[in-house]
Amino acid sequence: MNQLSLNQWTTRRWTVAEAVDGCVRHGIEAIGLWRQNVAEQGLNETVKLVRGAGLRVSSLCRGGFLTGPEPLADNRRAIDEAAALEASCLVMVVGGLPGVVPGEPLGVFSRDLAGARALVAEGLAELAPYAADRGVRLALEPLHPMYCADRAVLSTLGQALDFAEPYPPEVVGVVVDTFHLWWDPGVFDQIARAGARIASYQVCDFLCPLPADVLLGRGMMGDGVIDFAPLNRAVAEAGYRGEIEVEIFNADVWAADPDTVLTTMKSRYADLIA
Amino acid sequence: MNQLSLNQWTTRRWTVAEAVDGCVRHGIEAIGLWRQNVAEQGLNETVKLVRGAGLRVSSLCRGGFLTGPEPLADNRRAIDEAAALEASCLVMVVGGLPGVVPGEPLGVFSRDLAGARALVAEGLAELAPYAADRGVRLALEPLHPMYCADRAVLSTLGQALDFAEPYPPEVVGVVVDTFHLWWDPGVFDQIARAGARIASYQVCDFLCPLPADVLLGRGMMGDGVIDFAPLNRAVAEAGYRGEIEVEIFNADVWAADPDTVLTTMKSRYADLIA
Repeated sequence: MNQLSLNQWTTRRWTVAEAVDGCVRHGIEAIGLWRQNVAEQGLNETVKLVRGAGLRVSSLCRGGFLTGPEPLADNRRAIDEAAALEASCLVMVVGGLPGVVPGEPLGVFSRDLAGARALVAEGLAELAPYAADRGVRLALEPLHPMYCADRAVLSTLGQALDFAEPYPPEVVGVVVDTFHLWWDPGVFDQIARAGARIASYQVCDFLCPLPADVLLGRGMMGDGVIDFAPLNRAVAEAGYRGEIEVEIFNADVWAADPDTVLTTMKSRYADLIA
Repeated sequence: MNQLSLNQWTTRRWTVAEAVDGCVRHGIEAIGLWRQNVAEQGLNETVKLVRGAGLRVSSLCRGGFLTGPEPLADNRRAIDEAAALEASCLVMVVGGLPGVVPGEPLGVFSRDLAGARALVAEGLAELAPYAADRGVRLALEPLHPMYCADRAVLSTLGQALDFAEPYPPEVVGVVVDTFHLWWDPGVFDQIARAGARIASYQVCDFLCPLPADVLLGRGMMGDGVIDFAPLNRAVAEAGYRGEIEVEIFNADVWAADPDTVLTTMKSRYADLIA
């Protein structure tokens, strides 16, 4: 199996249909889908497209935001979509401090970080049985600590594993994303600890200096500061054999011709990841 | 003792002489100095000014950058300066990946993060005896993980404590800075573990969204997302009784009248820290 998967936000301007075509054209066997793109294409149509192309769906992005108001209904819909797509996992970006809106000035919000983390545990307890019943694996994604306030109060792999621990690994796993975790002095120990909990391995580089919008600091492998080899090795030694998704949020990559992006991605993947 | 200390970069446009005057005018009993400002004022003149004003020097910023070329000579000078100033500690920002220059595009550099961390341990082993002989306390500062590549490969308090462990606490301590550490799920355990190793407590807020230059994401207490009370309590319970420095890198704060900044700082300190 070729492990390389295109996370469709790497070619953000492509629709699901275009991204599926792109994968076929470039010999990529798996795709990570985003819910809003799936909704635009239509869920049933997306299922047909990926099946027809013989693609595996390496992840659906994303559920989560469990610290926001009434998160459960939308997460159940996300789980249903992941089930329909037979996605390897539903990526869970758990949310930041209650009331903090990504990219917006602070309004009314809570500084209670411990409380926010408790909300994540509570939400997960509600959703895990629902996911298990539908054969969907939730994948908790620790995000870089610079996103703690506005996107994810899960900031390290160790912490994500603590949250996952009450559940079977096939129901609640974790995402290992090089961008978010490369700096962590404990990351190798935690990848080994994760073992069968690793539900997704996402790769991209960490740009330095960061761009003005830190959300777009993800670069093509080789364009930033990450030493991928030890991370690749650790994930393989932990037993992970699933897809390796390239997920890049980057203004220059988004502005480039998506076919060129895929060509570069395959070449960098061959050099630095495979 | 009033624990409040002005880190002079909070009033960056002030010279040492002006900052000393400002502290006296506002009843602030301690100051954190920066080496370049001390050099501009002259070391002997600075010693006279702070002595004459009866100020304690809560820190000298900064030594470190141990991952760069030939770091020892400059660090020995920094230690000598800290000794002359009778500073409570010399803050050590240990440096990023070798060859990565803060704020500059990547050139020739090393991605070997483990190797960079080893350089920090080696440099510390050279400098600790020199500092001990002069009665200077080195204070290892873990920086927020977003600065791992370009400023400090020490990213958590736990990791800083691991590096400090071979040395007596009065020779190698650590800095607890709210901006850098607030997100860490292990921070309270590590503050308790730090105990007598805490050489400096620095406070400022974490702004959200971050500004375009992430170095300037430090805000006045109350302007960002940090819940200070549990951190203040943890540091006090760990036994720390030294100065609490307000260190803010922020374009708006730097543009404001420094006397207004000090008035706001005292008021926010009274409300959120003291």
